[in-house]
Amino acid sequence: MEETRENSVGIVRTRTIRVVEPEQPLELACGKALGPIDVAYETYGQMDDSGDNVILICHALSGNAHVAGYNRPEDKKPGWWDNMVGPGKGIDTNKYFVICSNFLGGCGGTTGPSSVNPKTGKAYGPEFPIITISDMVRVQKLLLDKLGIKKLLAVIGGSIGGMQVLQWAIEYPEFAGVVIPAATTSHLGAQSIAFDAVGRNAILADPNFADGQYHGGKGPDKGLGIARMIGHITYLSEAGMREKFGRKLRSPGDYRYDFDSEFAVETYLDYQGQSFVERFDANSYLYITRAADYFDLQKDYGSLAKALANTKSRFLVVSFTSDWLFTPAQSKQIVDALAAARKDVSYCNINSPYGHDAFLLEPETLGSFICCFLKATCDPGGKKQPCSCYAGIGRSFSRLEQAHRARVDYELIESLIELNSTVLDVGCGDGELLANLIRDKGIRGEGIELKQELVLDCVCRGLPIIQQDIEEGLAHYADKSFRYVILSQTLQTVKNPEKVFAELLRVGRKVIVSFPNFAHWRCRLQLLLSGKAPVTKQLPFEWHSSPNIHCLSLRDFDGFCDKLGVRIEKRIPLGKTRANPVKFAPNLFAEQVVYVTSKG
Amino acid sequence: MEETRENSVGIVRTRTIRVVEPEQPLELACGKALGPIDVAYETYGQMDDSGDNVILICHALSGNAHVAGYNRPEDKKPGWWDNMVGPGKGIDTNKYFVICSNFLGGCGGTTGPSSVNPKTGKAYGPEFPIITISDMVRVQKLLLDKLGIKKLLAVIGGSIGGMQVLQWAIEYPEFAGVVIPAATTSHLGAQSIAFDAVGRNAILADPNFADGQYHGGKGPDKGLGIARMIGHITYLSEAGMREKFGRKLRSPGDYRYDFDSEFAVETYLDYQGQSFVERFDANSYLYITRAADYFDLQKDYGSLAKALANTKSRFLVVSFTSDWLFTPAQSKQIVDALAAARKDVSYCNINSPYGHDAFLLEPETLGSFICCFLKATCDPGGKKQPCSCYAGIGRSFSRLEQAHRARVDYELIESLIELNSTVLDVGCGDGELLANLIRDKGIRGEGIELKQELVLDCVCRGLPIIQQDIEEGLAHYADKSFRYVILSQTLQTVKNPEKVFAELLRVGRKVIVSFPNFAHWRCRLQLLLSGKAPVTKQLPFEWHSSPNIHCLSLRDFDGFCDKLGVRIEKRIPLGKTRANPVKFAPNLFAEQVVYVTSKG
Repeated sequence: MEETRENSVGIVRTRTIRVVEPEQPLELACGKALGPIDVAYETYGQMDDSGDNVILICHALSGNAHVAGYNRPEDKKPGWWDNMVGPGKGIDTNKYFVICSNFLGGCGGTTGPSSVNPKTGKAYGPEFPIITISDMVRVQKLLLDKLGIKKLLAVIGGSIGGMQVLQWAIEYPEFAGVVIPAATTSHLGAQSIAFDAVGRNAILADPNFADGQYHGGKGPDKGLGIARMIGHITYLSEAGMREKFGRKLRSPGDYRYDFDSEFAVETYLDYQGQSFVERFDANSYLYITRAADYFDLQKDYGSLAKALANTKSRFLVVSFTSDWLFTPAQSKQIVDALAAARKDVSYCNINSPYGHDAFLLEPETLGSFICCFLKATCDPGGKKQPCSCYAGIGRSFSRLEQAHRARVDYELIESLIELNSTVLDVGCGDGELLANLIRDKGIRGEGIELKQELVLDCVCRGLPIIQQDIEEGLAHYADKSFRYVILSQTLQTVKNPEKVFAELLRVGRKVIVSFPNFAHWRCRLQLLLSGKAPVTKQLPFEWHSSPNIHCLSLRDFDGFCDKLGVRIEKRIPLGKTRANPVKFAPNLFAEQVVYVTSKG
Repeated sequence: MEETRENSVGIVRTRTIRVVEPEQPLELACGKALGPIDVAYETYGQMDDSGDNVILICHALSGNAHVAGYNRPEDKKPGWWDNMVGPGKGIDTNKYFVICSNFLGGCGGTTGPSSVNPKTGKAYGPEFPIITISDMVRVQKLLLDKLGIKKLLAVIGGSIGGMQVLQWAIEYPEFAGVVIPAATTSHLGAQSIAFDAVGRNAILADPNFADGQYHGGKGPDKGLGIARMIGHITYLSEAGMREKFGRKLRSPGDYRYDFDSEFAVETYLDYQGQSFVERFDANSYLYITRAADYFDLQKDYGSLAKALANTKSRFLVVSFTSDWLFTPAQSKQIVDALAAARKDVSYCNINSPYGHDAFLLEPETLGSFICCFLKATCDPGGKKQPCSCYAGIGRSFSRLEQAHRARVDYELIESLIELNSTVLDVGCGDGELLANLIRDKGIRGEGIELKQELVLDCVCRGLPIIQQDIEEGLAHYADKSFRYVILSQTLQTVKNPEKVFAELLRVGRKVIVSFPNFAHWRCRLQLLLSGKAPVTKQLPFEWHSSPNIHCLSLRDFDGFCDKLGVRIEKRIPLGKTRANPVKFAPNLFAEQVVYVTSKG
């Protein structure tokens, strides 16, 4: 994205404020006390009189308080998330008051291992206590207290920033209306711990590390550079690196047959290592990666469910398809725990080739999700269409599919559901049915949908929406979590209808299923007389391009329920409109059908 | 697998032989000359009088000549591939004479950077010339010449060993009957080069490296240990590490809040790093990883196709599903180039959780493939059943599927194919039809199949078989590569019949398609009268469990061909047996149908 200073927040100043006095040091998770603590922070935009528009951003390993704009007129590069934070951007500084602070243990102005230890007059170095993500968040809270901020509209962050977001939601459940953890995890897996460990080993092995007492002298630049190189590989995807570098040589021609950087990717890593060394402190690297290793909500709270039990915020969890450092599965684990606890959670796994770094490199898509989620939260009765903030997201939803979804059964299904029910709509599309049910019946509804653009539609409508494939099952929902589960015009498209239907019956007291009737007289006649696979208004696809991979009739479904021991509470054969229910010979005359079923 | 000395080759001795004299040094790819060159090697089993049973094994980065058995009675651990090489094992030393040598540049007895440079009387160190995979292979060839070995039954190796296998097939096309490159690639991608570069950086940054002149003194142990740690992470899969270590702590209880190894995975990496340092030379690590970086068949020969153009061996390419260092896609690239050149190539992507190391950790599955492939090559008219060498591979092929595959159409399809045709059977199952066609019609046949156990069946039959999903297309085959392409009873099970059919028509002059007729009178009547999705002998599945995701009739397929501009050369409606072809009202009375089609 072309950055111009015109669409940035302009020149900003990093401020520093003391949040912990030396006389009253902060007790840390490791058991040691630390004080004084100074915090560096920046702010953008204006706070409302109500104080309702404050957004806290939490930064990742190599970030700092300088999110957006320029610190000096001569700066060539803006802050680390300038593509997301600014006037008219995903986090719109015309609307919101944005604040970000360098976290505890960092080297961007907040107290960390390179700060002067007042007791010795020298840098802390290895005397700095081990810190945790929880400690970082407590210091952020002290900063907000100091600034008189009483509540947050949102806390947003990616990677290690996302860990802080989760910690915020857990430790201060009343404080933030919305939390958006992106590209993060509730705990590092063995592979990530391993990469961190190797990076730290490289720093510790550097003789210039001098047991961490290098401050004021020559630091462990080589070790830190190597650590950064390792990290950098994990931030990119294999496909992304292949695309960007492939086997390009540093200089054209034949191999030079030596151990200098021969390939472009080597030169790139050299550069990344060297430039990092110039702006980052090796001890901070050790302390921050250790904090990430130690972050483990399961261990800290007994289980993820317990950790999240008291949260009150609306969650938007975001992962990226090609992120192999903090994987989509790790995000989904958080989502599942929240969904199991019936929290207000939405989840999107954004399609991106950029690996872990995607949270910095997908401003349009991620920006749309953040922008719409914030808007729907601030203005729940507002416009239900996607924001115009970014037109970048294409609508791949075909007209045929749309026609297929403009469905007679919606009206009927609505009529079946009691006021104030709990409803899960599986394959909810753009959320129209759920939105109608909320408006007309006051239900509490949640949706599941696979397509990213439809998930965004649901986010815009303010619906809790989880992006997933129903074939993966619904293990995160306890038995009988919902009064109604709806599977509208989807059963015939799933690979394993038996497994899917069993899951729905497990999580819902009643399951409403609708599907087109394959035994409608037109189908029968077409097959009988023309000898061709039927194509009708309800089954509008040719045999080779149909998403309907199973053919079933009312009688087929009756037999299916019988076999599975499922009780059919209602069977409503439908004609073309709701006003015309089919009474006579329904398996012959119904174009589609709605069943209400329950586990017998 | 429990190893006992009883099922090993026993005590073996590593021998060393001079293959290059100092007076006639070997000209290397880098342009420098090297001599003398000594080679360390081991052999197992007995050579036949004919010399037909010699197998060369090529080792990987950290391996050496000691493949199997024990060098000393007191040794606790056997050679690095003892689970694969021994009496009755995948590479059976009762049948085959097996040889493996430490490669050039290694540190296991063959001349490398830690060897004494006769010109200086000191270790070569950085004076050692840069070597390539091609140089390694040329030295192996010199060894075989020296030992009087005139031909090889097979060359087998994994990872960097697999690169040598490829190089063997290319440089000495007449020499080896079979080549089995496993878990390898024709070139490293950017991510792998990056990991190598960081590992080398760690060695180069270690002050004890002393510009490579450390031999005889204290070496760059810390740097080499870090390089090994990085490598080790890439050899395992994320899921494998999660399973093995998870977040287990080194010692039970709470965190100790320091930078020592806290997690079990850290301790494991420490151990891997330290134990590697004791047995490996840092300079060898630099030279070998550089050789791997430089390996690039595309660059060396202009293209992969040109590189493989003159090969004459039978190829069995093997990858592992969870290998993210040298991915299945990289193996498939080699397979595609070979298939495009119409070489005798088989490919299996073995399902394994063990990542890149799977080539060392899947002795049963990999052993079955190697054993069967060798057996079918040595004894092409032999027993067509799977070897009994390993009963470990389960037969997941259900009886219903088997019944479905015992097919009337086989006989008819055979009758349609001219003598000595070229045939591609897509979805060839266990290869029965292809084997019959080879036996009865002398065709040259190749198969494509998705299921691992069926691929093994085909390997046992000696058929060239490529494991892949037909939905991925057949881009590796040029237009009109085959006289016939067969898609038997599969069209109705593919997601995208139009795309698949178009691919088949592109690569075959004629495409033979068979499928069950959905408009058979029993189907029509069943739907008409019972109002249920038809279940017949040819369509034996219930609506919800059917693999047939499309329903089509003769008329449907006629219309499909018409729409795509495809010429129907023959349409043979079938009854229950071949003897009973359907002449009257075929769309009503045929239970299944065989079409011969071609691009109009």
